[in-house]
Amino acid sequence: MAPKPLDYESLNENVKKVAYAVRGELYLRASELQKEGKKIIFTNVGNPHALGQKPLTFPRQVIALCQAPFLIDDPNVETIFPADAIARAKHYLSMTSGGLGAYSDSRGLPGIRKEIAEFIEKRDGYPSDPGLIFLTGGASKGIMQILHTIIRNGRDGILVPVPQYPLYSATISLYGGSLVPYYLEEEANWGLDLNNVKQSVAAARSKGIIVRAMVIINPGNPTGQCLSESNLREILSFCYQENLVLLADEVYQQNIYQDERPFISARKLGLMVNPPKPGDISYLKYAAESKAVLDSLRRRAHLMTDGFNSCRNVVCNFTQGAMYSFPQIRLPPKAIEAAKKAGKLPDVFYCLKLLEATGISTVPGSGFGQKEGVFHLRTTILPSEEDMPAIMASFKKFNDDFMNQYDYKTHSRM
Amino acid sequence: MAPKPLDYESLNENVKKVAYAVRGELYLRASELQKEGKKIIFTNVGNPHALGQKPLTFPRQVIALCQAPFLIDDPNVETIFPADAIARAKHYLSMTSGGLGAYSDSRGLPGIRKEIAEFIEKRDGYPSDPGLIFLTGGASKGIMQILHTIIRNGRDGILVPVPQYPLYSATISLYGGSLVPYYLEEEANWGLDLNNVKQSVAAARSKGIIVRAMVIINPGNPTGQCLSESNLREILSFCYQENLVLLADEVYQQNIYQDERPFISARKLGLMVNPPKPGDISYLKYAAESKAVLDSLRRRAHLMTDGFNSCRNVVCNFTQGAMYSFPQIRLPPKAIEAAKKAGKLPDVFYCLKLLEATGISTVPGSGFGQKEGVFHLRTTILPSEEDMPAIMASFKKFNDDFMNQYDYKTHSRM
Repeated sequence: MAPKPLDYESLNENVKKVAYAVRGELYLRASELQKEGKKIIFTNVGNPHALGQKPLTFPRQVIALCQAPFLIDDPNVETIFPADAIARAKHYLSMTSGGLGAYSDSRGLPGIRKEIAEFIEKRDGYPSDPGLIFLTGGASKGIMQILHTIIRNGRDGILVPVPQYPLYSATISLYGGSLVPYYLEEEANWGLDLNNVKQSVAAARSKGIIVRAMVIINPGNPTGQCLSESNLREILSFCYQENLVLLADEVYQQNIYQDERPFISARKLGLMVNPPKPGDISYLKYAAESKAVLDSLRRRAHLMTDGFNSCRNVVCNFTQGAMYSFPQIRLPPKAIEAAKKAGKLPDVFYCLKLLEATGISTVPGSGFGQKEGVFHLRTTILPSEEDMPAIMASFKKFNDDFMNQYDYKTHSRM
Repeated sequence: MAPKPLDYESLNENVKKVAYAVRGELYLRASELQKEGKKIIFTNVGNPHALGQKPLTFPRQVIALCQAPFLIDDPNVETIFPADAIARAKHYLSMTSGGLGAYSDSRGLPGIRKEIAEFIEKRDGYPSDPGLIFLTGGASKGIMQILHTIIRNGRDGILVPVPQYPLYSATISLYGGSLVPYYLEEEANWGLDLNNVKQSVAAARSKGIIVRAMVIINPGNPTGQCLSESNLREILSFCYQENLVLLADEVYQQNIYQDERPFISARKLGLMVNPPKPGDISYLKYAAESKAVLDSLRRRAHLMTDGFNSCRNVVCNFTQGAMYSFPQIRLPPKAIEAAKKAGKLPDVFYCLKLLEATGISTVPGSGFGQKEGVFHLRTTILPSEEDMPAIMASFKKFNDDFMNQYDYKTHSRM
């Protein structure tokens, strides 16, 4: 029989190398268990609405009106839409020719890019040029596009923090480049030590890699830290000296859960750039909804960090920003041995056991990168506040049982 | 001074090779002229809403309600939304967990894929498996994804019709594959002659190319023809024998402007798969809107083809489907010479002159591919019916002047 025209053997090798842990083995097993009727708590992807967070009202009103512009001419429109949402929809529609169903300029609508430039200008205090702003279909597509443009072959290297969000490792594999890892310092609250970066660059260059760009993720994913201003300045001058493109992933800039270390941009575009202002009809509702979401996430960040830190052999930095908690699990040698026997990485083994026992669907740290012999898991902080105590209790019970089974003497905390 | 970390020299070579004529030199010049105050008729991209076509009411009502699900609970919702749109929005929202702002399964929502499978089953009369249906962010992304998966290196060849939509040539360049062209027969109303395909395959193989897939575009873009059933059967058995992946681009399956040659699918997914049915509240309005759009496009297809065929040295097949007209312009030797002096391809030269004289923004045939020494342009058939006579008169006058300037004796028609 002839081989199939397209089978695993004949796929592009780079496509085969792509691994995406947040949708990987753990997620697939969780989906199976769900089909079998088990209640699963999906904390593998940062998916707040799937876990009950309600969308903000004003932006959705505006989008609905832009999608169905004939509503604006309906004499009853004001019975269900506030006047400022109607005015805003008219404003955005006036920027298009033909509404949301028409192709726009490839870079995005000029009017929207102008508003983003104004937002950046206001945020950073420096002018911003709309001509240099490109809108993409989600952050991932933008990252993929710029990496595709930079990477010419396997000798081109991209500096990526470890732990990292696996979009970076996946995209660099897909386009056949070389990932040059630099480690974040867990002991320093996942801080970025430029000496690590310099060592990584030197090691890569000694292997003939041309280091071309540096990725920073701020606030960190999965690590949740905010970079300090002095750290950012160091990074910028390092990139300038070494002639590197700086790729700053700042998608979580509005998800900050403490006041000591505010988010500071390395200069990129922002989200939700033009919300209702004080005095607007929808302002109070919008402000209350946003505050409620962020306040609740802040409380959940504390509940989760504290919960993890109360568990045996678990240690966890506080989630300063983003939507994730990334506890270290100090796996005892017996557990590592059992994992090996089962043909699993130790953290995958732990996370699978956690899933089977509790329905909590997390992502093993190996999907993000971690130092040799150190193990983590990533969970979102998104389950509802009411559910959180039960989830953390369930985790604690599982972890106790696991440690009782594999750890005959208590390990010292890190 | 150090070189910039990213400049034209250091870009990925495949990215540099990407050319996209529908957004190319002609489009950029048209945008400039528009900024200078000239009235431009943009017929370079198939962008119906930008040229005044109104969106269909029912789908937009449903999308608006899905975007802003709190509207469904508003006591006044029925004053501006019909009950069947509300019911449909509830139906789609029930398929999601967390609404449109939540990540779904990577392949798309299972419920939507099930409806698409039902549509295909009804359309083709054969069962369809939702598990084999993948939703993508637009047709282009789907095409890019499958080509990326197939193409391993420059020895992998993809059969592409010429003329083709430049997405194919651009994507094959981007992923470093080889485009294997097969010519459509203009004299046979842009029909596909399998002998041409076989010759192309043989020629490619003799150069060491591994031909892996065959693209068909049905209805054709820019050529507008529908493939006959017998032609499709030939193609399918050819792909089977030669072990080729068949990539059937059928995005325009509902844009058909004649009854003799109905659209027949080579088995792929469809658009707008679940419109209101007879008896539904919104059915009459939906059916009337759809019919009005298609009837008007059918009249415009005739106006445009007839208009082109009444022009000196211009010959044009009828647009059986899709949204484009692709007339051949028989450029006289003097015009070809003048183009050469101006450093332009002959069809680019003609289209630029047309743009400057009339504001009609078209795309030169060289962007889609054409036989050596034969020249075309592509225009959409989308300008409004009222504007069409003036546009065609303006084209005719320009073409007369052009031919008077460059063609001292009348050429025979093809």
